[in-house]
Amino acid sequence: MNVFIEPIGTLINEFSKLPGVGAKTAQRYAYRVVNMTEEEAIAFAEAIIAAKKKVHYCSVCGNYTDKEVCEICRTRDESVICVVKEPKDVVAFEKVREFKGVYHVLHGTISTMEGIGPNDIRIKELLARVYKGGVKEVIMATNPDVEGEATAMYISGLLKPLGVKVTRLAQGVSIGAELEYADEVTLSKALSDRKEL
Amino acid sequence: MNVFIEPIGTLINEFSKLPGVGAKTAQRYAYRVVNMTEEEAIAFAEAIIAAKKKVHYCSVCGNYTDKEVCEICRTRDESVICVVKEPKDVVAFEKVREFKGVYHVLHGTISTMEGIGPNDIRIKELLARVYKGGVKEVIMATNPDVEGEATAMYISGLLKPLGVKVTRLAQGVSIGAELEYADEVTLSKALSDRKEL
Repeated sequence: MNVFIEPIGTLINEFSKLPGVGAKTAQRYAYRVVNMTEEEAIAFAEAIIAAKKKVHYCSVCGNYTDKEVCEICRTRDESVICVVKEPKDVVAFEKVREFKGVYHVLHGTISTMEGIGPNDIRIKELLARVYKGGVKEVIMATNPDVEGEATAMYISGLLKPLGVKVTRLAQGVSIGAELEYADEVTLSKALSDRKEL
Repeated sequence: MNVFIEPIGTLINEFSKLPGVGAKTAQRYAYRVVNMTEEEAIAFAEAIIAAKKKVHYCSVCGNYTDKEVCEICRTRDESVICVVKEPKDVVAFEKVREFKGVYHVLHGTISTMEGIGPNDIRIKELLARVYKGGVKEVIMATNPDVEGEATAMYISGLLKPLGVKVTRLAQGVSIGAELEYADEVTLSKALSDRKEL
Protein backbone atom coordinates (compact mmCIF):
# COMPACT_ATOMS: atom_id res chain seq x y z
CA MET A 1 0.00 0.00 0.00
CA ASN A 2 0.99 3.62 -0.43
CA VAL A 3 2.21 5.37 2.70
CA PHE A 4 -0.22 8.26 2.20
CA ILE A 5 -3.96 8.09 1.64
CA GLU A 6 -5.05 9.53 -1.70
CA PRO A 7 -6.21 13.06 -0.73
CA ILE A 8 -3.03 13.70 1.28
CA GLY A 9 -0.79 12.12 -1.38
CA THR A 10 -2.37 14.32 -4.06
CA LEU A 11 -1.85 17.45 -1.97
CA ILE A 12 1.78 16.51 -1.23
CA ASN A 13 2.26 16.14 -4.98
CA GLU A 14 0.80 19.61 -5.57
CA PHE A 15 2.99 21.22 -2.92
CA SER A 16 6.04 19.49 -4.43
CA LYS A 17 5.55 21.61 -7.55
CA LEU A 18 6.43 24.77 -5.64
CA PRO A 19 10.03 25.95 -6.05
CA GLY A 20 12.50 24.33 -3.65
CA VAL A 21 9.89 22.09 -1.99
CA GLY A 22 10.97 18.48 -1.48
CA ALA A 23 8.96 15.46 -0.33
CA LYS A 24 9.47 16.09 3.39
CA THR A 25 8.51 19.77 3.23
CA ALA A 26 5.50 19.02 1.03
CA GLN A 27 4.37 16.46 3.62
CA ARG A 28 4.61 19.04 6.42
CA TYR A 29 2.61 21.54 4.38
CA ALA A 30 -0.06 18.93 3.59
CA TYR A 31 -0.45 17.98 7.23
CA ARG A 32 -0.78 21.66 8.10
CA VAL A 33 -3.66 21.92 5.62
CA VAL A 34 -5.37 18.85 7.10
CA ASN A 35 -5.13 20.51 10.51
CA MET A 36 -6.62 23.80 9.29
CA THR A 37 -10.25 24.68 9.91
CA GLU A 38 -12.45 24.28 6.85
CA GLU A 39 -12.70 28.10 6.55
CA GLU A 40 -8.92 28.40 6.52
CA ALA A 41 -8.54 25.73 3.85
CA ILE A 42 -11.19 27.39 1.69
CA ALA A 43 -9.53 30.81 2.11
CA PHE A 44 -6.21 29.26 1.05
CA ALA A 45 -7.71 27.57 -2.02
CA GLU A 46 -9.59 30.71 -3.02
CA ALA A 47 -6.43 32.82 -2.73
CA ILE A 48 -4.73 30.49 -5.21
CA ILE A 49 -7.60 30.70 -7.70
CA ALA A 50 -7.85 34.50 -7.28
CA ALA A 51 -4.11 35.05 -7.76
CA LYS A 52 -4.24 33.00 -10.94
CA LYS A 53 -7.48 34.42 -12.37
CA LYS A 54 -7.21 38.10 -11.42
CA VAL A 55 -3.51 38.66 -12.00
CA HIS A 56 -2.17 39.36 -15.49
CA TYR A 57 0.41 41.63 -17.09
CA CYS A 58 -0.04 45.41 -17.08
CA SER A 59 -0.64 46.44 -20.70
CA VAL A 60 1.93 49.23 -20.35
CA CYS A 61 4.84 47.97 -18.24
CA GLY A 62 4.34 44.19 -18.20
CA ASN A 63 4.36 43.93 -14.42
CA TYR A 64 1.69 41.92 -12.61
CA THR A 65 -1.58 43.73 -11.98
CA ASP A 66 -5.24 43.01 -11.44
CA LYS A 67 -6.21 46.13 -13.43
CA GLU A 68 -5.80 46.91 -17.15
CA VAL A 69 -2.98 49.34 -16.35
CA CYS A 70 -1.11 48.89 -13.05
CA GLU A 71 -1.17 51.42 -10.23
CA ILE A 72 2.47 52.37 -10.74
CA CYS A 73 1.91 53.23 -14.43
CA ARG A 74 -1.23 55.21 -13.55
CA THR A 75 0.20 57.29 -10.72
CA ARG A 76 3.91 57.85 -11.17
CA ASP A 77 6.44 59.85 -13.16
CA GLU A 78 6.37 58.39 -16.67
CA SER A 79 9.45 60.30 -17.81
CA VAL A 80 11.80 57.83 -16.09
CA ILE A 81 11.53 54.13 -16.96
CA CYS A 82 13.40 51.49 -14.98
CA VAL A 83 13.91 48.37 -17.13
CA VAL A 84 14.02 45.06 -15.23
CA LYS A 85 14.06 41.40 -16.09
CA GLU A 86 11.20 40.09 -13.97
CA PRO A 87 8.22 41.22 -11.86
CA LYS A 88 10.06 40.27 -8.67
CA ASP A 89 12.72 42.87 -9.53
CA VAL A 90 9.99 45.52 -9.37
CA VAL A 91 9.19 44.30 -5.85
CA ALA A 92 12.87 44.67 -4.89
CA PHE A 93 12.94 48.28 -6.11
CA GLU A 94 9.59 49.17 -4.57
CA LYS A 95 10.84 47.99 -1.19
CA VAL A 96 13.58 50.64 -1.39
CA ARG A 97 10.81 53.28 -1.67
CA GLU A 98 13.07 55.76 -3.46
CA PHE A 99 12.28 55.35 -7.12
CA LYS A 100 9.45 57.62 -8.27
CA GLY A 101 9.40 56.62 -11.95
CA VAL A 102 7.74 53.72 -13.76
CA TYR A 103 8.99 50.27 -14.79
CA HIS A 104 9.31 48.13 -17.87
CA VAL A 105 9.43 44.38 -17.29
CA LEU A 106 11.25 42.51 -20.07
CA HIS A 107 10.21 39.02 -18.88
CA GLY A 108 13.64 37.64 -19.61
CA THR A 109 17.06 38.66 -20.85
CA ILE A 110 18.80 37.93 -24.12
CA SER A 111 20.63 34.61 -23.78
CA THR A 112 22.35 32.81 -26.65
CA MET A 113 22.84 29.84 -24.31
CA GLU A 114 19.11 29.45 -23.79
CA GLY A 115 18.20 30.61 -27.29
CA ILE A 116 16.38 33.74 -26.11
CA GLY A 117 16.70 36.51 -28.70
CA PRO A 118 15.69 40.19 -28.67
CA ASN A 119 12.26 39.32 -30.10
CA ASP A 120 11.51 36.90 -27.26
CA ILE A 121 11.47 39.59 -24.58
CA ARG A 122 9.49 42.84 -24.32
CA ILE A 123 11.95 45.14 -26.14
CA LYS A 124 9.51 46.23 -28.90
CA GLU A 125 7.08 47.37 -26.22
CA LEU A 126 9.82 49.44 -24.56
CA LEU A 127 10.75 51.10 -27.85
CA ALA A 128 7.08 51.90 -28.46
CA ARG A 129 6.87 53.63 -25.06
CA VAL A 130 9.93 55.74 -25.83
CA TYR A 131 8.71 56.53 -29.39
CA LYS A 132 5.48 57.89 -27.91
CA GLY A 133 7.57 60.66 -26.32
CA GLY A 134 7.89 62.16 -22.85
CA VAL A 135 10.58 59.74 -21.70
CA LYS A 136 13.69 61.51 -20.43
CA GLU A 137 15.66 58.62 -18.98
CA VAL A 138 15.73 54.83 -19.22
CA ILE A 139 17.53 53.08 -16.36
CA MET A 140 18.82 49.65 -17.36
CA ALA A 141 18.35 47.61 -14.19
CA THR A 142 18.84 44.11 -15.55
CA ASN A 143 20.99 41.80 -13.41
CA PRO A 144 24.75 42.45 -13.29
CA ASP A 145 25.47 39.09 -14.98
CA VAL A 146 26.45 38.18 -18.55
CA GLU A 147 22.88 38.09 -19.93
CA GLY A 148 21.84 41.19 -18.00
CA GLU A 149 24.83 43.16 -19.26
CA ALA A 150 24.35 42.00 -22.85
CA THR A 151 20.66 42.92 -22.74
CA ALA A 152 21.41 46.34 -21.24
CA MET A 153 23.99 47.02 -23.96
CA TYR A 154 21.68 45.85 -26.74
CA ILE A 155 18.73 47.97 -25.61
CA SER A 156 20.99 50.94 -24.97
CA GLY A 157 22.15 50.74 -28.59
CA LEU A 158 18.53 50.93 -29.77
CA LEU A 159 17.53 53.78 -27.45
CA LYS A 160 20.43 56.19 -27.75
CA PRO A 161 19.67 57.14 -31.40
CA LEU A 162 16.24 58.24 -30.16
CA GLY A 163 17.90 60.91 -28.02
CA VAL A 164 16.90 59.44 -24.68
CA LYS A 165 19.31 59.29 -21.75
CA VAL A 166 20.19 55.67 -20.95
CA THR A 167 21.78 54.82 -17.58
CA ARG A 168 22.91 51.64 -15.87
CA LEU A 169 22.75 50.74 -12.17
CA ALA A 170 26.05 51.46 -10.41
CA GLN A 171 28.20 48.40 -9.77
CA GLY A 172 30.62 47.92 -6.90
CA VAL A 173 31.00 46.27 -3.55
CA SER A 174 27.79 45.68 -1.62
CA ILE A 175 27.11 47.95 1.31
CA GLY A 176 28.03 46.13 4.51
CA ALA A 177 29.94 43.41 2.68
CA GLU A 178 33.45 42.43 3.74
CA LEU A 179 36.00 43.12 1.02
CA GLU A 180 37.70 39.84 1.91
CA TYR A 181 34.71 37.97 0.50
CA ALA A 182 33.94 40.18 -2.52
CA ASP A 183 34.60 38.40 -5.82
CA GLU A 184 37.42 39.64 -8.02
CA VAL A 185 35.28 40.98 -10.85
CA THR A 186 33.19 43.07 -8.45
CA LEU A 187 36.28 44.36 -6.69
CA SER A 188 37.96 45.24 -9.99
CA LYS A 189 34.81 47.07 -11.11
CA ALA A 190 34.58 48.92 -7.79
CA LEU A 191 38.19 50.00 -8.18
CA SER A 192 37.93 51.26 -11.76
CA ASP A 193 34.66 53.10 -11.05
CA ARG A 194 36.00 54.68 -7.84
CA LYS A 195 34.57 58.10 -6.90
CA GLU A 196 36.42 61.09 -5.51
CA LEU A 197 35.45 61.97 -1.95
CA MET B 1 1.27 51.92 -1.82
CA ASN B 2 1.74 48.31 -0.89
CA VAL B 3 4.55 46.51 -2.72
CA PHE B 4 2.22 43.68 -3.78
CA ILE B 5 -1.13 43.94 -5.54
CA GLU B 6 -4.00 42.55 -3.49
CA PRO B 7 -4.46 39.03 -4.98
CA ILE B 8 -0.72 38.32 -4.74
CA GLY B 9 -0.45 39.86 -1.26
CA THR B 10 -3.37 37.72 -0.06
CA LEU B 11 -1.79 34.56 -1.45
CA ILE B 12 1.60 35.41 0.09
CA ASN B 13 -0.21 35.79 3.40
CA GLU B 14 -1.82 32.36 2.99
CA PHE B 15 1.48 30.67 2.13
CA SER B 16 3.08 32.35 5.17
CA LYS B 17 0.78 30.27 7.38
CA LEU B 18 2.56 27.06 6.33
CA PRO B 19 5.19 25.80 8.80
CA GLY B 20 8.63 27.35 8.31
CA VAL B 21 7.56 29.62 5.45
CA GLY B 22 8.81 33.21 5.72
CA ALA B 23 7.96 36.27 3.63
CA LYS B 24 10.55 35.59 0.93
CA THR B 25 9.59 31.95 0.44
CA ALA B 26 5.87 32.78 0.45
CA GLN B 27 6.55 35.35 -2.28
CA ARG B 28 8.35 32.76 -4.43
CA TYR B 29 5.46 30.32 -3.98
CA ALA B 30 2.91 32.99 -4.89
CA TYR B 31 4.75 33.92 -8.07
CA ARG B 32 4.93 30.24 -8.98
CA VAL B 33 1.13 30.06 -8.69
CA VAL B 34 0.70 33.18 -10.85
CA ASN B 35 2.86 31.48 -13.49
CA MET B 36 0.86 28.24 -13.40
CA THR B 37 -1.71 27.45 -16.06
CA GLU B 38 -5.28 27.92 -14.88
CA GLU B 39 -5.76 24.12 -14.84
CA GLU B 40 -2.73 23.71 -12.57
CA ALA B 41 -3.93 26.40 -10.17
CA ILE B 42 -7.40 24.84 -10.00
CA ALA B 43 -5.91 21.37 -9.38
CA PHE B 44 -3.81 22.83 -6.56
CA ALA B 45 -6.78 24.60 -4.95
CA GLU B 46 -8.97 21.51 -5.28
CA ALA B 47 -6.30 19.31 -3.67
CA ILE B 48 -6.34 21.63 -0.64
CA ILE B 49 -10.12 21.50 -0.32
CA ALA B 50 -10.18 17.71 -0.84
CA ALA B 51 -7.45 17.07 1.76
CA LYS B 52 -9.39 19.16 4.27
CA LYS B 53 -12.89 17.83 3.49
CA LYS B 54 -12.20 14.14 2.84
CA VAL B 55 -9.57 13.49 5.50
CA HIS B 56 -10.57 12.79 9.09
CA TYR B 57 -9.46 10.48 11.88
CA CYS B 58 -9.91 6.72 11.59
CA SER B 59 -12.55 5.73 14.16
CA VAL B 60 -10.32 2.88 15.37
CA CYS B 61 -6.70 4.05 15.39
CA GLY B 62 -7.01 7.83 15.09
CA ASN B 63 -4.74 8.06 12.04
CA TYR B 64 -5.80 10.11 9.02
CA THR B 65 -8.11 8.37 6.59
CA ASP B 66 -10.73 9.17 3.97
CA LYS B 67 -12.76 6.10 5.00
CA GLU B 68 -14.64 5.34 8.24
CA VAL B 69 -11.93 2.85 9.25
CA CYS B 70 -8.47 3.22 7.68
CA GLU B 71 -6.92 0.68 5.37
CA ILE B 72 -4.29 -0.34 7.91
CA CYS B 73 -6.94 -1.16 10.55
CA ARG B 74 -9.00 -3.07 7.98
CA THR B 75 -6.23 -5.23 6.55
CA ARG B 76 -3.50 -5.84 9.10
CA ASP B 77 -2.69 -7.89 12.18
CA GLU B 78 -4.78 -6.40 14.99
CA SER B 79 -2.99 -8.37 17.72
CA VAL B 80 -0.03 -5.97 17.72
CA ILE B 81 -0.68 -2.25 18.29
CA CYS B 82 2.07 0.32 17.80
CA VAL B 83 1.27 3.46 19.84
CA VAL B 84 2.56 6.73 18.38
CA LYS B 85 2.16 10.42 19.13
CA GLU B 86 1.13 11.75 15.72
CA PRO B 87 -0.06 10.65 12.26
CA LYS B 88 3.33 11.54 10.77
CA ASP B 89 4.92 8.91 13.02
CA VAL B 90 2.75 6.30 11.28
CA VAL B 91 4.20 7.50 7.97
CA ALA B 92 7.72 7.06 9.36
CA PHE B 93 7.00 3.46 10.37
CA GLU B 94 5.17 2.62 7.14
CA LYS B 95 8.19 3.74 5.14
CA VAL B 96 10.24 1.05 6.90
CA ARG B 97 7.78 -1.54 5.50
CA GLU B 98 8.48 -4.04 8.27
CA PHE B 99 5.71 -3.57 10.77
CA LYS B 100 2.68 -5.76 10.02
CA GLY B 101 0.50 -4.73 12.97
CA VAL B 102 -1.83 -1.78 13.45
CA TYR B 103 -1.36 1.64 15.04
CA HIS B 104 -2.88 3.79 17.72
CA VAL B 105 -2.35 7.54 17.34
CA LEU B 106 -2.47 9.40 20.66
CA HIS B 107 -2.55 12.90 19.10
CA GLY B 108 -0.19 14.20 21.73
CA THR B 109 1.82 13.15 24.75
CA ILE B 110 1.30 13.87 28.42
CA SER B 111 3.05 17.14 29.26
CA THR B 112 2.76 18.93 32.56
CA MET B 113 4.61 21.88 31.00
CA GLU B 114 1.91 22.32 28.38
CA GLY B 115 -0.92 21.23 30.65
CA ILE B 116 -1.74 18.11 28.62
CA GLY B 117 -3.07 15.36 30.88
CA PRO B 118 -3.95 11.70 30.22
CA ASN B 119 -7.53 12.66 29.35
CA ASP B 120 -6.41 15.08 26.66
CA ILE B 121 -4.91 12.37 24.46
CA ARG B 122 -6.41 9.15 23.08
CA ILE B 123 -5.57 6.82 25.98
CA LYS B 124 -9.20 5.80 26.76
CA GLU B 125 -9.59 4.69 23.15
CA LEU B 126 -6.43 2.56 23.43
CA LEU B 127 -7.67 0.92 26.63
CA ALA B 128 -11.02 0.20 24.95
CA ARG B 129 -9.22 -1.55 22.09
CA VAL B 130 -7.25 -3.73 24.49
CA TYR B 131 -10.35 -4.46 26.65
CA LYS B 132 -12.10 -5.75 23.53
CA GLY B 133 -9.54 -8.57 23.49
CA GLY B 134 -7.29 -10.12 20.86
CA VAL B 135 -4.37 -7.79 21.53
CA LYS B 136 -1.13 -9.62 22.34
CA GLU B 137 1.37 -6.80 22.34
CA VAL B 138 1.37 -3.01 22.59
CA ILE B 139 4.54 -1.34 21.35
CA MET B 140 5.07 2.07 22.94
CA ALA B 141 6.61 4.09 20.10
CA THR B 142 6.28 7.59 21.51
CA ASN B 143 9.31 9.85 21.05
CA PRO B 144 12.40 9.13 23.17
CA ASP B 145 12.06 12.49 24.98
CA VAL B 146 10.76 13.43 28.43
CA GLU B 147 7.07 13.59 27.44
CA GLY B 148 7.29 10.49 25.25
CA GLU B 149 8.94 8.47 28.04
CA ALA B 150 6.44 9.67 30.65
CA THR B 151 3.52 8.83 28.37
CA ALA B 152 4.93 5.36 27.62
CA MET B 153 5.40 4.68 31.34
CA TYR B 154 1.91 5.93 32.21
CA ILE B 155 0.16 3.85 29.54
CA SER B 156 2.29 0.82 30.35
CA GLY B 157 1.10 1.04 33.96
CA LEU B 158 -2.52 0.93 32.77
CA LEU B 159 -2.02 -1.92 30.29
CA LYS B 160 0.10 -4.37 32.24
CA PRO B 161 -2.69 -5.25 34.75
CA LEU B 162 -4.76 -6.30 31.69
CA GLY B 163 -2.21 -9.03 30.98
CA VAL B 164 -1.01 -7.60 27.68
CA LYS B 165 2.67 -7.52 26.75
CA VAL B 166 3.94 -3.93 26.61
CA THR B 167 7.21 -3.15 24.85
CA ARG B 168 9.19 0.00 24.14
CA LEU B 169 11.28 0.86 21.08
CA ALA B 170 14.95 0.07 21.63
CA GLN B 171 17.11 3.06 22.40
CA GLY B 172 20.77 3.49 21.53
CA VAL B 173 23.07 5.07 19.02
CA SER B 174 21.64 5.71 15.57
CA ILE B 175 22.79 3.39 12.80
CA GLY B 176 25.47 5.16 10.78
CA ALA B 177 25.99 7.87 13.39
CA GLU B 178 29.45 8.77 14.62
CA LEU B 179 29.88 8.05 18.33
CA GLU B 180 31.83 11.28 18.64
CA TYR B 181 28.64 13.22 17.99
CA ALA B 182 26.20 11.07 19.97
CA ASP B 183 24.81 12.90 23.00
CA GLU B 184 25.75 11.63 26.44
CA VAL B 185 22.30 10.37 27.45
CA THR B 186 22.01 8.30 24.28
CA LEU B 187 25.51 6.90 24.70
CA SER B 188 24.88 6.05 28.35
CA LYS B 189 21.64 4.28 27.38
CA ALA B 190 23.40 2.40 24.57
CA LEU B 191 26.05 1.24 27.03
CA SER B 192 23.67 0.06 29.77
CA ASP B 193 21.42 -1.72 27.23
CA ARG B 194 24.38 -3.40 25.46
CA LYS B 195 23.72 -6.79 23.87
CA GLU B 196 25.95 -9.85 23.86
CA LEU B 197 27.25 -10.74 20.41
